[in-house]
Amino acid sequence: MTPDQFRRLGHRLVEWIADYREQCDKFPVRAVVEPGAVRAGLPPHPPEAAEDLEAALFADLERIIVPGLTHWQHPSFFAWFPGNANLASVLAELLAAGLGQNGINWQASPALTEVEEVTCDWMRQLLGLSTAWSGVIQDVASTATLVALLCARERATAYSQTRGGLQAEPAPLVVYATSEAHSSIEKAALLAGFGRLHLRTVATDDALAMRPDALAAMIADDRKAGLRPCAVVATIGSTATTAIDPLAAIVPIARAHGLWVHVDAAMAGTAMLLPECRPLWDGVEGADSIVLNPHKWLGVVGDCSLYYVRDPAHLVRVMSTNPSYLRTDADPDVHNFRDWGIPLGRRFRALKLWLHLRASGAEALRARLRRDLEHARWLAAEIDDTPHWRRIAPVRLQTVCVRHEPPGLSAEATDAHNLAWVEQLNQSGAALLTPAQVRGEWIVRISIGAEATEFRHVEALWQQMRALAESCVASPSSR
Amino acid sequence: MTPDQFRRLGHRLVEWIADYREQCDKFPVRAVVEPGAVRAGLPPHPPEAAEDLEAALFADLERIIVPGLTHWQHPSFFAWFPGNANLASVLAELLAAGLGQNGINWQASPALTEVEEVTCDWMRQLLGLSTAWSGVIQDVASTATLVALLCARERATAYSQTRGGLQAEPAPLVVYATSEAHSSIEKAALLAGFGRLHLRTVATDDALAMRPDALAAMIADDRKAGLRPCAVVATIGSTATTAIDPLAAIVPIARAHGLWVHVDAAMAGTAMLLPECRPLWDGVEGADSIVLNPHKWLGVVGDCSLYYVRDPAHLVRVMSTNPSYLRTDADPDVHNFRDWGIPLGRRFRALKLWLHLRASGAEALRARLRRDLEHARWLAAEIDDTPHWRRIAPVRLQTVCVRHEPPGLSAEATDAHNLAWVEQLNQSGAALLTPAQVRGEWIVRISIGAEATEFRHVEALWQQMRALAESCVASPSSR
Repeated sequence: MTPDQFRRLGHRLVEWIADYREQCDKFPVRAVVEPGAVRAGLPPHPPEAAEDLEAALFADLERIIVPGLTHWQHPSFFAWFPGNANLASVLAELLAAGLGQNGINWQASPALTEVEEVTCDWMRQLLGLSTAWSGVIQDVASTATLVALLCARERATAYSQTRGGLQAEPAPLVVYATSEAHSSIEKAALLAGFGRLHLRTVATDDALAMRPDALAAMIADDRKAGLRPCAVVATIGSTATTAIDPLAAIVPIARAHGLWVHVDAAMAGTAMLLPECRPLWDGVEGADSIVLNPHKWLGVVGDCSLYYVRDPAHLVRVMSTNPSYLRTDADPDVHNFRDWGIPLGRRFRALKLWLHLRASGAEALRARLRRDLEHARWLAAEIDDTPHWRRIAPVRLQTVCVRHEPPGLSAEATDAHNLAWVEQLNQSGAALLTPAQVRGEWIVRISIGAEATEFRHVEALWQQMRALAESCVASPSSR
Repeated sequence: MTPDQFRRLGHRLVEWIADYREQCDKFPVRAVVEPGAVRAGLPPHPPEAAEDLEAALFADLERIIVPGLTHWQHPSFFAWFPGNANLASVLAELLAAGLGQNGINWQASPALTEVEEVTCDWMRQLLGLSTAWSGVIQDVASTATLVALLCARERATAYSQTRGGLQAEPAPLVVYATSEAHSSIEKAALLAGFGRLHLRTVATDDALAMRPDALAAMIADDRKAGLRPCAVVATIGSTATTAIDPLAAIVPIARAHGLWVHVDAAMAGTAMLLPECRPLWDGVEGADSIVLNPHKWLGVVGDCSLYYVRDPAHLVRVMSTNPSYLRTDADPDVHNFRDWGIPLGRRFRALKLWLHLRASGAEALRARLRRDLEHARWLAAEIDDTPHWRRIAPVRLQTVCVRHEPPGLSAEATDAHNLAWVEQLNQSGAALLTPAQVRGEWIVRISIGAEATEFRHVEALWQQMRALAESCVASPSSR
């Protein structure tokens, strides 16, 4: 594509995206297509000749792509977690792509490296973390957590990877987390070679938070059995219910036994921009690594995951490779971020965090987060005041978990009832919620925090929920 | 940022990027800044109030960012490997960001999933691979190779991750590759827990290709010693010299002993769009996994790495997680690509491959690749015809490796001489080349394949190389 074609198509695309965002609330939130429909709309073979994208692209978008979208930017998107893509960060992605950089070492793109250093430090300040932390951008939290467990493994084994690897270790290493921990914790532990048998599920309290006494007891038992406790993953804001593990109590236990403490604050870490939320991760300064995702609630378009560590030299030692063609004279004076994670090739991701922070300013970001917290508190209060609706967990942040429990239904029928009304609501297109299992029961999560969500959207949601759930159960067939 | 602000800034940014690309050849190829200069140009603290980006952004780009760029899109960029960011794929990144999708499961973005299925299959057809392969987009080859070695580990151990992991395995697993294999192979083997002691360096022949007899002998020795040969990584186009391991000979040996065969064709795989290049990976249909990077020579802006496997069910079994909040009724009928790799969150990366293929058409892409191959052959012939210049390796693709060897210099002085003239050339800003070590000697790599590189740029480069290297050695101080 020539620069002139780029100009013409680019201007139209900018307008199309702005229109899309302005009209996003007109679409059903959840994609309406059947499996295979998008695929069936596309040619089965690649084009031999160049196509005129100016003629074809916008028609394809309307005809094929948009019906196949679930609209994460919709004001009534209350599913999974907020996945905001603020328009300043969208432009930053355009810029990053336009510059066509690849940060395989500092020399290959000094600006890429140093803007990343600066924005990671800006975020550190906004989060209220001490200067003991060094940050780097990873793609997603799953990767960052894998990196953390690899670093834990290598610290516990004095760098077994430089010898026989995990295969030559005398006694198994063990990782600890709760049943509420994100699925990526188990995945990372399995990929890192620990094995499911060496992943402990620590008991939780009534608020679904890790019980420090249970952790301590498990560690003691494992040590007695000749195993080696290696790492504990503390969740600050679980996916299902935003449960908060008590870091201040966990850290001393972990420290006493030499465990790595990884803090998974992927979604909820954003809340730490608010000083009033920071007691939720009290003790964080005693951890070894933290992951949080600006590409969720904060509003940076994905992927943009922040990974903070207190010992970057250890991270580099675990991750570094140094082939001759990547060495430069500048190496002693710079960061080569390829050695701070798994990928060698690196995009200019920091641009989108940088421009988002500048376009919004910290004050407005904090105001928006507080708005969302208030919406969640309002909804929680409504639920508490309404008969037959049960709030499942404390509303610590912006997620509300609820179960409608009409009298006279068995536990099983109540499960089915909740799955039914939420599916009806989702199918209506008016809003999108996610069901989840908590303590074996099916509940419904309302994850508030889309940029476009105003109070009226939350209010309307609650009315729709009540209308659907309460009428749903009125019909005898649903019993 | 409001849609209206987005429109205004977006239009200016489209123009700025088009201008940048048109004038890219005016910049020194390599960034001219000292370490820390970009960082020093940025405020140390994040902004509390919103900034007027329309006023600030373009000034910052000119003042801070552009001087800190190494211009990968410059026609005289001959460093590391081509990192083309075709403008159609740049617009696709804008679109992907504008849509703000996250493909955590099919339901979360059916279009994201199914466009990825289709474009991976388009690429399969263009590469001449059989229908036995299923493709998925990963971020980069380092990650794809880690995924491959994890899959190899789990196949060899009948899914040890579901039991005690690598920690409970009776005999160590071994991975094989040559000294020419990419640094990400060693990194992946170490991260996957094999340990450096279980990573074998297979001997190479005169063309730096793996010697199948050496591989067979090593496997036999390891088996005799009670170890378990697990995987061999065959490099199709090494980074330093584009050396090609003989897959057709490697595959039967690997098969006989149950080894996983992973094909690292990260850079050179793009050449397989040309039927005349496909003999270079003859035997590929017997492999288990392939990685190649459309974000290199092919021209899709990073990150966009293709990972093909013959047994996707195995990949899913190794990678899958299935928490309640990610399950949907559609699951039996769709691909959930989160289970095809490490990350859960997924960008709409397929758009950039899709639009690039459509905007260019396969025919024009093949013509451009053939142009680059011809440039490399021309340069190789020039080198062969010029006294005291030695070509270091066969020119199989678009990379030429050379060493200037003036008479009377020791091997050490010749190393220093080559490092000196290439640094002078790089410092001049006229072009960018990468020195590398091959068989212990410092040589210079000319990696041809930037989209903008025409014959005149290669011709000019050769003149500059000769002028610098031959005058460099004429001055007595450089002896």
